[in-house]
Amino acid sequence: MSQLFHLAKTLSAGYPWISSPLIVGAPMRVMSGPALAVAISRAGGLGFIGPGLKTQDILRDLDEASSLIQQSKIFQIARLSTSPTLPVGIGFQVWTDDLDIAASAIAKYQPCAAWLFAPRNGQPDLDIWSRRIRSASPHTHIWVQIGTVAEARTLLAGTEQPDVIVVQGAEAGGHGRASDGIGLISLLPEIADTLAARNSAIPLVAAGGIADGRGAAAALALGASGVAMGTRFLATPEARIARGYQAEIVRASEGGVSTTRTQLYNHLRGTYGWPEEYSPRTIINRSFMEFQEGRSFEQLKGDHDEALKRGDEGWGPEGRLATYAGASVGLVKEVKGAEEIVRDIKGFVETVFGEGRGV
Amino acid sequence: MSQLFHLAKTLSAGYPWISSPLIVGAPMRVMSGPALAVAISRAGGLGFIGPGLKTQDILRDLDEASSLIQQSKIFQIARLSTSPTLPVGIGFQVWTDDLDIAASAIAKYQPCAAWLFAPRNGQPDLDIWSRRIRSASPHTHIWVQIGTVAEARTLLAGTEQPDVIVVQGAEAGGHGRASDGIGLISLLPEIADTLAARNSAIPLVAAGGIADGRGAAAALALGASGVAMGTRFLATPEARIARGYQAEIVRASEGGVSTTRTQLYNHLRGTYGWPEEYSPRTIINRSFMEFQEGRSFEQLKGDHDEALKRGDEGWGPEGRLATYAGASVGLVKEVKGAEEIVRDIKGFVETVFGEGRGV
Repeated sequence: MSQLFHLAKTLSAGYPWISSPLIVGAPMRVMSGPALAVAISRAGGLGFIGPGLKTQDILRDLDEASSLIQQSKIFQIARLSTSPTLPVGIGFQVWTDDLDIAASAIAKYQPCAAWLFAPRNGQPDLDIWSRRIRSASPHTHIWVQIGTVAEARTLLAGTEQPDVIVVQGAEAGGHGRASDGIGLISLLPEIADTLAARNSAIPLVAAGGIADGRGAAAALALGASGVAMGTRFLATPEARIARGYQAEIVRASEGGVSTTRTQLYNHLRGTYGWPEEYSPRTIINRSFMEFQEGRSFEQLKGDHDEALKRGDEGWGPEGRLATYAGASVGLVKEVKGAEEIVRDIKGFVETVFGEGRGV
Repeated sequence: MSQLFHLAKTLSAGYPWISSPLIVGAPMRVMSGPALAVAISRAGGLGFIGPGLKTQDILRDLDEASSLIQQSKIFQIARLSTSPTLPVGIGFQVWTDDLDIAASAIAKYQPCAAWLFAPRNGQPDLDIWSRRIRSASPHTHIWVQIGTVAEARTLLAGTEQPDVIVVQGAEAGGHGRASDGIGLISLLPEIADTLAARNSAIPLVAAGGIADGRGAAAALALGASGVAMGTRFLATPEARIARGYQAEIVRASEGGVSTTRTQLYNHLRGTYGWPEEYSPRTIINRSFMEFQEGRSFEQLKGDHDEALKRGDEGWGPEGRLATYAGASVGLVKEVKGAEEIVRDIKGFVETVFGEGRGV
């Protein structure tokens, strides 16, 4: 029991404003902007800013996050003076982000954590990025996202050990393991056992398919030290997301059936080159249905680009635009403030495990 | 919190020997025999006997279970006199089992529960089976296994409501939803919400991917009133399983990668006709690998049948025989008594949620 609901030392020392249980806002590309990340941290969680369309976009985002944090008294109250870092993290898609720009942004703003995902060349790329980031900002923690037991073994054998391992289950929205993923309920305990067998105490953060207190409590019971969510935070006023996209997140249900993994929407958006180990989970709409029916990519691309011009109407079951979301989308039924989401989940988890238990 | 770790009235009234949290032995075809089912119930859980090769095989199994139960003082101590039913359940594959034989066996032995799975014609078949079983044995509870939110809605609209709904996630071994399944961490809460929105208080039992106390605690946190396991009980002395098969369950790891869904092994065994909504998860071995490489079914069938003659050597990574197992297989590292498994999990869950909490 002692490990349950108990923040690993790495976490409580590195992020003095957080309160147990640790709730994390995942670094969704573009959509996790400074307003969302800071709101999550303000509620005692840890918000990540997502990768930008271009790596240099994070400079503006980190600058804005710094301003928001300076305006917030909460961080000063919460012993922030003991931490030299910015109380938000930043995420990178290793295969496509620019390490020079990333390292200089991290050196300048010192975010508390850098979340690395999807290297082109596996562990060697992660080692290079980790070393460079640590050299740029020694207090910035390295988080690495994985989705298989094999990746956990490889990570532990790397030259740069991460400070935190994010274990992403197959239910996750956006990009994750294309074909060798599996649900958190089996994956997380097996990765925890893999670490324990190697005497590794690196804390695990669970991601994928979690959208409320029930999923968060389940992930902690499975052995996680914290819980990351993406889809749930898309339905917040703070998310940097089109209203049509957000409305579809609130509308969609039956996540196991209404979402699928496909490269189609990446290609419709002109995004090519993701390492083949990864594919995104998205809500199904007309583009995918007609693709399944055999309509040509050129025709689908034409209709997609027309839908793009129509804005918010381009999303929805009859829409054509990419709507990346996790299988937990059926649990998201309203737009709600990010701080309220974090507090509600913390409250639920505390009740489930007993107030103050092991905190 | 009040519902967590609290047995639904249906459960505590129908099965007076069980103690919270409810741990269930899934009705694995042939492999869940009377010895396994009775051992699980003896430890305060609820063991199910699986379907037989032919429906009439359950007569012999129920008879043997009755004898084992009469020999056990535990059931008498545990207020069994208040229950008119046999403290084990029985499972059926609705699409292929014989309802006449099933109903007469249930009338004769009065098992406490009948677990229905995989109807050929959906809800109408479930209604027919439920009515007939209730008429044959009014105290026998009807359990229905589903794997999608849509099935939950259909069930609630049926003429015969089940007493218990088993929610099976995509990580489960053996047969489950072929293509529209998803992990328990998103599926179970959404089905719980679907029931709540219709004011249904039918208790949910979670299945799929659970093999130890961590998974059990997680499932209860997600909203389940009980937890069913299959794969974990394959590695018990009580399971009716070949030693070679059992050794492979203990050996295999990385369930997300070492298992897959395929009809291949059904066909190699000569089993055809499963409703297309279902497929089994199995550990990958040479048959599947060579099938992927394009080897002909006839050649694979020949080698499979040869492997069958070799017995225990026919299983393993270089083997060719069907090895149905869930994605939790990497959590099963030793053969252990079924009673010990149930007691260990109950102990872990009690510790996680606090002793006596809500029991």
